[in-house]
Parts: sequence; structure tokens; C-alpha cells
Amino acid sequence: MAWSGGTAAADQMVLRRHNLGVVLQHLRDDGPKSRARIAEGTGLNKATVSSLVAELAELGLVREGELERGAVGRPGATVELDGASVCGIGAEVNVDHVACLALNLRDEIVGERRRGLDTRTLAPREVLDHLAVLVAETMDEIAARGAQPFGITFGVAGLVDSAGVLVSAPNLGWHDVPVAGLMFERLGRPPYPLRVENEANLAAIAEAAADRCADRRDLVVLAGEVGVGGGIVSDGRLLRGRRGFAGEIGHLQVDPQGRVCGCGRTGCWETVVGLRALLTAAADPDDAVHDPSLPLEQRLGEINRRAELGDARTLSALHQVGRWLGVGAATLVNVLNPGVIVLSGYFAVVGSWMLESMRAELAARSIAPRAGGCRVELSTLGTSATVLGGARVALESVFEDPAMVRRGDASRAPQTIGGSR
Amino acid sequence: MAWSGGTAAADQMVLRRHNLGVVLQHLRDDGPKSRARIAEGTGLNKATVSSLVAELAELGLVREGELERGAVGRPGATVELDGASVCGIGAEVNVDHVACLALNLRDEIVGERRRGLDTRTLAPREVLDHLAVLVAETMDEIAARGAQPFGITFGVAGLVDSAGVLVSAPNLGWHDVPVAGLMFERLGRPPYPLRVENEANLAAIAEAAADRCADRRDLVVLAGEVGVGGGIVSDGRLLRGRRGFAGEIGHLQVDPQGRVCGCGRTGCWETVVGLRALLTAAADPDDAVHDPSLPLEQRLGEINRRAELGDARTLSALHQVGRWLGVGAATLVNVLNPGVIVLSGYFAVVGSWMLESMRAELAARSIAPRAGGCRVELSTLGTSATVLGGARVALESVFEDPAMVRRGDASRAPQTIGGSR
Repeated sequence: MAWSGGTAAADQMVLRRHNLGVVLQHLRDDGPKSRARIAEGTGLNKATVSSLVAELAELGLVREGELERGAVGRPGATVELDGASVCGIGAEVNVDHVACLALNLRDEIVGERRRGLDTRTLAPREVLDHLAVLVAETMDEIAARGAQPFGITFGVAGLVDSAGVLVSAPNLGWHDVPVAGLMFERLGRPPYPLRVENEANLAAIAEAAADRCADRRDLVVLAGEVGVGGGIVSDGRLLRGRRGFAGEIGHLQVDPQGRVCGCGRTGCWETVVGLRALLTAAADPDDAVHDPSLPLEQRLGEINRRAELGDARTLSALHQVGRWLGVGAATLVNVLNPGVIVLSGYFAVVGSWMLESMRAELAARSIAPRAGGCRVELSTLGTSATVLGGARVALESVFEDPAMVRRGDASRAPQTIGGSR
Repeated sequence: MAWSGGTAAADQMVLRRHNLGVVLQHLRDDGPKSRARIAEGTGLNKATVSSLVAELAELGLVREGELERGAVGRPGATVELDGASVCGIGAEVNVDHVACLALNLRDEIVGERRRGLDTRTLAPREVLDHLAVLVAETMDEIAARGAQPFGITFGVAGLVDSAGVLVSAPNLGWHDVPVAGLMFERLGRPPYPLRVENEANLAAIAEAAADRCADRRDLVVLAGEVGVGGGIVSDGRLLRGRRGFAGEIGHLQVDPQGRVCGCGRTGCWETVVGLRALLTAAADPDDAVHDPSLPLEQRLGEINRRAELGDARTLSALHQVGRWLGVGAATLVNVLNPGVIVLSGYFAVVGSWMLESMRAELAARSIAPRAGGCRVELSTLGTSATVLGGARVALESVFEDPAMVRRGDASRAPQTIGGSR
């Protein structure tokens, strides 16, 4: 169904810029191929493709690749993405750290920094000062390699409105912080687009891009930390909702008789699947897995170790969290019918012990047979999903309008500051 | 955010057909306007617009309208949609009736038929026989007016897969019925696209089109009957999910301690907001409002009458259902952040008594302030929402490729049979 409110007009004057993007996106999505196969794949004629490829090469965005194998007739030279110097930046404020990552057009990470920071003890402006230092260091690092940023996207764990204001982030204790405006000043009013987005939304973009199988065009990310975040990709596009507040799944009520949540409501999903719920069920309060001074990786490693040893209490806690994951996931399956649910954050680390009970509960509670075909998978992106997604969003402007990288164009481009809609 | 898996290439050869659609959609979405203002609104140049308008007029899809008022300088002649003879057909199988509606390109209903039928006492093939008769009668009616169908969409209350098979419809008692294939044969293998879609999805399309305010680009329809159906429009597009099973909201669990549902699960949303829940709370079993031999309109009219008289039991029942509507709606608001929730079906008839308690519960349970800006409104489309949405989906192929109406093109067009994705 292509029902839609409208279709963009394509006039001669914008057609060529548009088609530069079509070819560049095609090479990203389908991998290196000959000009003849690009023509087949995009519906453009061969002469046009040759001319577009020449312009993209001149812009430094594509290059000649290997000879095409297995084709009938004389093998053609392939074209592949280049753009080693064209970067998108993703950056993140989390409860216990700030992070920054630079990705180039060839999908290579060319800079990554992460700094532990107890963000809850600092004022928002101080945290953003720290983040600005980290971003500046990353910029220096990529500049030393001759690369240049063409966009930056900040991920935060909370509600972000379309002006880039963090309306509410309970786990950071932040309210009404104009993150986009504050970072714009701190970065010296950069000439490229600056956006702010919910962190789980960015993780969803990273997950959908990590594996371009068709099922991932309809994907939900469940990001488990102290809270539980959600990011939704629907038919290949991020689902943001009317004001950018979609995916607030941590406070779905799953147990009206349950615990009181930090938000003041009762029986929210994160009270039974958040990190604290697992740790509380798995170990007594004086157990080292509760010690906030130890790295989370180490504490979760201990949970995995005990599960491997067959410790009954640990296994029971993991199964219980898995069952509750299935309860909430069934709601998402019934509403959204995703092709894949990706467990990220702490869920990805200990998830192998939770999958069986989660899948059973999900199947029992889904209306469509076999959970509507939905698979549950563990993220393989580790702690980088948010910054990786942010860098991809930042690069998207280049894929949409490759001519923007022409020297000087970035500084003439209209500044975009705000939410990423 | 325009993140997306890919962009369609626009080559010279398809550009003109594409742009015919751009102009036609623009006139639908923005209303009659001069060629100069179409050029402004679409980004096409004026000469191209004039030439496209001439071709659309030759196809009978637009015509000259009134002189433009209020413009600076000499008033220009406006162009408006025509296409009185170009129709889309929507048809529906419901629990107690079958229905069919023909809509032309000028948004005029040119034929509408509805027949009471206790579909649960008949085999699916018999019901589809009745529906085919109704469709044939509607076709005769529009043919007598010189109009022609360019697509037909069937709405059914159940899970429809992408091949147009009704996988499961508990309230009809149907399973694995290949509706698309069966209707294709019954209608004599028509040359235009034939699609099958969940009825609430079609209602959502009709509601989004009924008022083109921006908030309705992100809309949820709650259709209250014996069961409760859901249809979701996200960023102006129908959200179908990976296999077409999205919007199955009637069985969201809202009360784990609640009643056993017809589906075998416990505490499903429809056990507390479905028609039976209201009637049971409002009146004793021997009360006339329970009498299935009376028209539903009459029984709901009696509920409204008692509410107006201040009957305590009736008002309490309506408030209780309203409160539960708010509980489930909060889940949808947290996941989807819609701009509008539209209550349709029986909810629209008695909804004015439920809105206050629904809104209070919704606001209390939504994470975003003021329910993320979501409004709750009563449908004004009555019982026609599904067939109207079906007719709109059927007409969409004309808006996307207006040249398809050229005499003979429809019969040469590739046949589309299946779900409406």
C-alpha cells in the first residue's frame, strides 16, 4: 500500500541532484556493482548512470572497484562507495557516560571516544560541556586523518520534541533542556545539520542498518538499562509519532497489581524487566552484583557465570525477566507486527538465558499465529548502537543530496538545528 | 527525519507520468488552485504544469474551476479535480451485514449499498456470493451513470496476510479464507487492482482523509463493535507491519485479573470495552438493549436516552467503559504518539458520555505531558468508514499514475490481487 499524503515533485532542475542520491543509496544498499547493473537496479539509463558515477567520483564519494565476477560476457569494472573523508558524527549522553563516534561513508568507524561520567551528579550544562570536549577531540582526530564532518546527531535517554528540546529524562533527572541549542553554541555554531534524538530511536536505526534483510524494515529495539527504551522502525522509516514521543515503552503497564515505579505509576514494564528487577531477583542486596562502583560489564559477566554454573536463583531470575519481556513484547507485536525484535543494552549481554521464556510468552499472547512471524534477536552492536545510529542519521543528508559535500557547500547549507524529524 | 531504506529513481521516461500524479495529488490535498500556484506548491515550472494540466484535462481528471480570488494582479483561472466517471470501490463483510460504496475522483459517493446478513450462519463462500451480488449491483448503478471502476478493496474484520488471505476472523468464525482469490473469480477476473485489507485499517485511511489537518497524519482509529479493531496511520501512511497484522488491539491485556476473553486469553481490552461489556454493565439480561433482533442503532439510542435522563446505572457503565478506553489508549499513545485518536463504530454513537473519563485516564497514564498532544475525537463517518476507506485505497492507483485511466490501459494493467501492501 502506498497510500500517502503526497509525493515530492521531481523537476528537471532537481532531478540530477536527486539521481546522484539514488545511485549512492543503491551502492550502499546493494554493494559494489557495475554501471550496467546500477542502471538495471535503479531504472536509470546507462548513459545517465555513467555521467552520475563520474560526478560522484569527482566528489570523492565513489571509486572504481574490482572487476565484476560471474557476469555473462566481458566483465565490467564495478563502482563502490568511497567517501573515506566524509563523516557523520553520533554522540550520546547516558546515565554513566558520554560517548562520540565518527563514521565515514564507507561504513568505517574513524573515531570513537567514551568517557565515564556520573551525569546525575552534574547540572545538564556541565554534562554538555563534557560532551562538547569529547566531540571536539573526535573532530580533531578525524581532521588529522583528513576527514570532515557533514552532520552530528545527539542521542539522549528521554522525550525529545521536534525543536531538539529534551522535555523529560527521568533517569537523568533532566527536564526541558534545550540540548540542540546548547550544543550548537558549544560547538561554535557548526555549518552542518545538528540534531537531537531519543537514544533508543538511534539504536533502532543502527539495528535496521546492521543487517539489511527485509524483516528488519519493521523492527523494534528494546534497550534495557535502569529504564527500558524503545525504538521503532516501520517500513524502513523511524516511527517518531506526532511530536517525536513514540517508543516510550518502559512505562507500559504490564502488572496493575505490581510495584510502584519511579514515575509514580504502578506495574510499569521497567519495574519487572529493568536492570534493577533482574539484579534484585538474582542476588541479595549485599551481593557484589549490586555494587555500583563495579563496571556493569563485570556485574553482568558474574550473572552469566552463575547461570552457566546452573545457579538456581540466577536462572530463575533470568527466566522471570524473560517471561515479563514476552508479556510486554506481545503488546508491541499486536500493535506493530514487527519482523524482528532486537534486544539491546543489558538484555543483549544476558539475553541468551531469557530468550526461551520470552519467546514462549510472546507466542502465547500474540494474536497472529507464530507471533506474526516476529523473530527475537540479541543485538551485536554492544554499547555503540546509539552513537552508530546517530552517525548514520548525520550521514543521511549526504546520501540524500551528495552534492552537498562539494567544497564550501556545507558552510552554505541552511543550518538544521532541532529534533531529527 | 527522512531516513529510509531507499529512494525511487526518477528517469526521464517515468518522470512525466510521475508528475501527472504529483499535480493530481496536489489538487486533492490543497484544493482548486491556479496553474501558477500549482507550480509554486509542487516546485514544477509553470510551462510543465500547464502541459501536465492539459494532459490531465484530456484524461478527464481535472477541469477549469472558478477564477482565483484574493490573488495579487490579474485573477487566474483555477484548476480543480474532475473525474466524475473515475471510481474506486470499497466493499465490506461484517458480522451482520455486507456493504459496498463507489467514490469518484471528485470525492462524491456515486453508489452505496448495504444488506443485512447474519454472516455467522453462512459458509464464507456463501457470504462472498452475497457480497459479489451487491458489488455487481453497484457496478451496474455506476455504469448507468457512465462511470467506471479502477480498483476495488475489500474490508474484513480479521487478520489479512499480504496475499489477501483472511488468516483469522474470530468474530466471523472464519479461518484461512482466500478472500482475494475468491472475489477475483466471482467478479469475473476484473482488469483493475483487487485488494483485501483489515476493516479498521480502511477506517483509519478514511478518517485520515476526512480532515487533512496535520495531526491526522498520525492517527489511530478504535473501532468498537463486539470486538475492538484498530487502524494506525503513521506519518500519513497506513502502518501494516511486516505481514499486514498490525493494529490488533482488541486483545491487548489490560486486566490480568479480568474476564476470560473469547480468544481464550484473560483480561483482553475488548472484554472491558467491547459492545457486550457496555450492555452488560448498563442493563439486566432481559432488558431490550440486549435483544439482538432489534437494530443496534435503536439499542444504542436507548442507552443515549437513559444517559440523558441521568440514569445512574447507564452513566456508570459508560464512565467505566470510558475509563478502560483510556487505559488501553495510553498504551497506544506511549508506543505511537498519535496526533488524534478517533473513536468509531459504537464508540462514536455513545462516546460523548465516555470521553471525560477516557481523557482523564489517558492523560494520567501517558508518559509525555498532556498525552503527547493527542486529541480524542468521535468519528463523523458513521457506518461507512470501512467502505469509504476501501474506495479511497482503490482510487489511490489513479492518483499515483493518472495515465492508467486512458481508455484500455486498465485492461492492460498488470493485475494486482492480494493484500493491499
